[in-house]
Amino acid sequence: MSTKNNQISTRKENYSQWYLDIIEAADLAEYGPVKGTMVIKPYGYAIWENIQSVLNAEIKATGHKNAYFPLLIPKSFFSKEASHVDGFAKECAVVTHYRLKNNQKGEIVVDESAKLEEELIIRPTSETIINHSFSQWISSWRDLPVLINQWANVLRWEMRTRPFLRTSEFLWQEGHTAHATEKEAEIEAQKMLNVYQNFVRDFLAMSVVSGKKSESEKFAGAIYTYTLEAMMQDGKSLQLATSHQLGQNFAKAFDIQFVDKENKKQYVWQTSWGMSTRSIGGLIMTHSDDHGLVLPPKIAPIQVVVVPILKGDTNDKKILKLVKKIQSVLKLKDRLEIDDRENLSMGMKFNIWEKKGVPIRIELGAKELEQNVVVLARRDTKEKKIVDIDNLAKVVKDTLVDIQTNLLHKAEQHRLKNTKSVDNWDDFKKAIENGYFVLAHWSGDPKVEEIIKKETGATIRCLPFDAKIENGTCVYSQKPSTQRALFAKTY
Amino acid sequence: MSTKNNQISTRKENYSQWYLDIIEAADLAEYGPVKGTMVIKPYGYAIWENIQSVLNAEIKATGHKNAYFPLLIPKSFFSKEASHVDGFAKECAVVTHYRLKNNQKGEIVVDESAKLEEELIIRPTSETIINHSFSQWISSWRDLPVLINQWANVLRWEMRTRPFLRTSEFLWQEGHTAHATEKEAEIEAQKMLNVYQNFVRDFLAMSVVSGKKSESEKFAGAIYTYTLEAMMQDGKSLQLATSHQLGQNFAKAFDIQFVDKENKKQYVWQTSWGMSTRSIGGLIMTHSDDHGLVLPPKIAPIQVVVVPILKGDTNDKKILKLVKKIQSVLKLKDRLEIDDRENLSMGMKFNIWEKKGVPIRIELGAKELEQNVVVLARRDTKEKKIVDIDNLAKVVKDTLVDIQTNLLHKAEQHRLKNTKSVDNWDDFKKAIENGYFVLAHWSGDPKVEEIIKKETGATIRCLPFDAKIENGTCVYSQKPSTQRALFAKTY
Repeated sequence: MSTKNNQISTRKENYSQWYLDIIEAADLAEYGPVKGTMVIKPYGYAIWENIQSVLNAEIKATGHKNAYFPLLIPKSFFSKEASHVDGFAKECAVVTHYRLKNNQKGEIVVDESAKLEEELIIRPTSETIINHSFSQWISSWRDLPVLINQWANVLRWEMRTRPFLRTSEFLWQEGHTAHATEKEAEIEAQKMLNVYQNFVRDFLAMSVVSGKKSESEKFAGAIYTYTLEAMMQDGKSLQLATSHQLGQNFAKAFDIQFVDKENKKQYVWQTSWGMSTRSIGGLIMTHSDDHGLVLPPKIAPIQVVVVPILKGDTNDKKILKLVKKIQSVLKLKDRLEIDDRENLSMGMKFNIWEKKGVPIRIELGAKELEQNVVVLARRDTKEKKIVDIDNLAKVVKDTLVDIQTNLLHKAEQHRLKNTKSVDNWDDFKKAIENGYFVLAHWSGDPKVEEIIKKETGATIRCLPFDAKIENGTCVYSQKPSTQRALFAKTY
Repeated sequence: MSTKNNQISTRKENYSQWYLDIIEAADLAEYGPVKGTMVIKPYGYAIWENIQSVLNAEIKATGHKNAYFPLLIPKSFFSKEASHVDGFAKECAVVTHYRLKNNQKGEIVVDESAKLEEELIIRPTSETIINHSFSQWISSWRDLPVLINQWANVLRWEMRTRPFLRTSEFLWQEGHTAHATEKEAEIEAQKMLNVYQNFVRDFLAMSVVSGKKSESEKFAGAIYTYTLEAMMQDGKSLQLATSHQLGQNFAKAFDIQFVDKENKKQYVWQTSWGMSTRSIGGLIMTHSDDHGLVLPPKIAPIQVVVVPILKGDTNDKKILKLVKKIQSVLKLKDRLEIDDRENLSMGMKFNIWEKKGVPIRIELGAKELEQNVVVLARRDTKEKKIVDIDNLAKVVKDTLVDIQTNLLHKAEQHRLKNTKSVDNWDDFKKAIENGYFVLAHWSGDPKVEEIIKKETGATIRCLPFDAKIENGTCVYSQKPSTQRALFAKTY
């Protein structure tokens, strides 16, 4: 447990620095020695473990099985799917040798005699290597669907990095499926987006827009990409999870064919979908305030911290006994922490747990002991109240639910309040400039999309599923349009 | 679910091939496209998930926290601890470039302009990069102990590989700790070996010898290495898990110092310990027979398979209803599988589940329906018995316990029966030749150890903790010795 007393920048004065300060103050992560890499510290990793635990159960409940595929992919695999290579093979880590040696000066150098015949790429995503396996696993309609998920590290070389949001190496799950028909693949891609959407709403308390990516923003190799876009507190959009309908692109590239019920050879239809440690970045930026991290109870590694107020007198023993009783009554197991450290002041302790975003803090000293009560402090609203110990279990349970609901509600309100429909170019520019999610008509012309990006920095985050079909004209080109797209700046 | 009907070699005719056949027949894993890599298929990965789940809980219960450190380690880190670099930096994957490009012919090639200033090594183990972090985390005695665990993939370039037992990339957990005193580090190293020993006995049903490695076999960078050595069915020894007392070697190399209670600067004392997917190889080779995989119930992804015998008549509906009832009564959740596939014969189904090592198979058809019984077949002994449905829950529960106990007992008996104390060189050579674990006096001379290895292929697996202190003479050199060492061939 860190006892550092970090200062946190306010969102207003420096949003970027605020984000980094939150991470440091909560002791979530730090940069690794190689540029662009990150060490996920225990408290940050505990959030990831909670995300994994819930999402993994959901992925299994929808019929998928976990497996593990190699980290290193032969370079030639990337050439097999033309658009995929453009999207992924370019900025990647290339393994060229398999041995080091001591040179004459005794220094450790690469052994040039151990040069690989074919260079290997550290997976930036695993479509190629998994589909190589699928081509061996699938031969008949009886083998379908194949529903696989992998929890893994992936690496995409990044020059401008920020912890969790964009790091060279990151952790994720990647689902890869193969189906007999286009329709089944389509249902799968939508189903998994729904799994993500329910998860981010019910556990991360995040409010998202779901929709389809434009052609220029879709996954390299996909027919379509579905996405969840969440609004951060600076109005920027964060892509939280994506689900791709891959059509038969990879099936053709890796020759994944099956014999159907009519004894005819067919290519499979595929999907892939993923959610990563980036979601922790989104979680931080959605809920935190100028005092530090704020975590939704359902994903918080510690839901309740109990801080006994000890004075070194005869009451201490009684107070600590009561703390133990509270611990057993609340039944939160390792999600309850008791902070009875002797070397820290109350003020420092409150500060530490506030920065760590623990949803509920319970304080009790001699006064509370006498009255059979505790002080219960909420991290989200910073409200304090006196709670009778006999009611504590119920109050804590209700308050955790209430905090979870409140955070989701706040996130939703923030997004709705900062979303605007605009119908002319001046309003569009102004709204983007002011950090809005902008719903505007767009004719579907990728050139216009490109110009809008250049002029305003905003990209099409998605074509929202809930957008009305209506007649309109493109906000930039005035060409006819039938639907509003969601424009925003992004990370 | 694979429906392939693989032939399995017998252990007697070809032990090596038997092992590979078991893996293929149970659909556990296959080779990846890059030499030395492995795809862990869903059924194999489910075993790993069960191992992870139990071991992770134990690691946490002993006070450790999970975290995640980067995959890529700067080459220079390996030069910092002299013996570590000799052990690990030599056969490793070296990243030299961070971009590919299209050449003039349109081929994908390495972009020579994207050459890294310092080469990066894919972690073969994480001591160096984790201790780099520890040096920043630790400054006072109040920061100690630091008790960290990581679940990760690691890579050691291997030329001769076998699935699970030896692959370039493998999955593992690696614990890394820092303590204020040598004694605390010593206690930690022993504690974690005990955690492993209890785990392999109680869950993997494996019988091991625990002890200390000789100097030549210890971890590169450690003061001592403790190990668990299990006997395989061919008499070879498999190192299942190791726990290292690192002393202050890495602390000095990475400058990890703390201010003690007397305000003096001191180097920390450290341990590291790990267990990998290799344990699955050991599990396979300990219990399996010539019919296929045999799994201990506690680690088996599927504990019970129910196979209804359907004839396409009016009984089918009733049988399937009873199957559902059995499923709900047994309460095994996803560890019970119902095989009601229509395209496979009974014989094929029995064969498939036998090869997959499912501990209990339950069969029921019209005859059983009429008599309100089922046929229960054990995978370990291949016994079949008729069980009254009203007793089924209890019988299944008891049988699972009995199989678990029986497998451990068999493994123990096998090890004891094939362990020999020998006192002269001829007996030693003969015993090693015949696949025994050999307990023999050894004076501690590494040169003798080297000669014995050359002449017999046997290495010192460990100096067993339970070896008596007694006067003897080295089995090869006749020099005085106080303890017997365990010699065996290994993988």
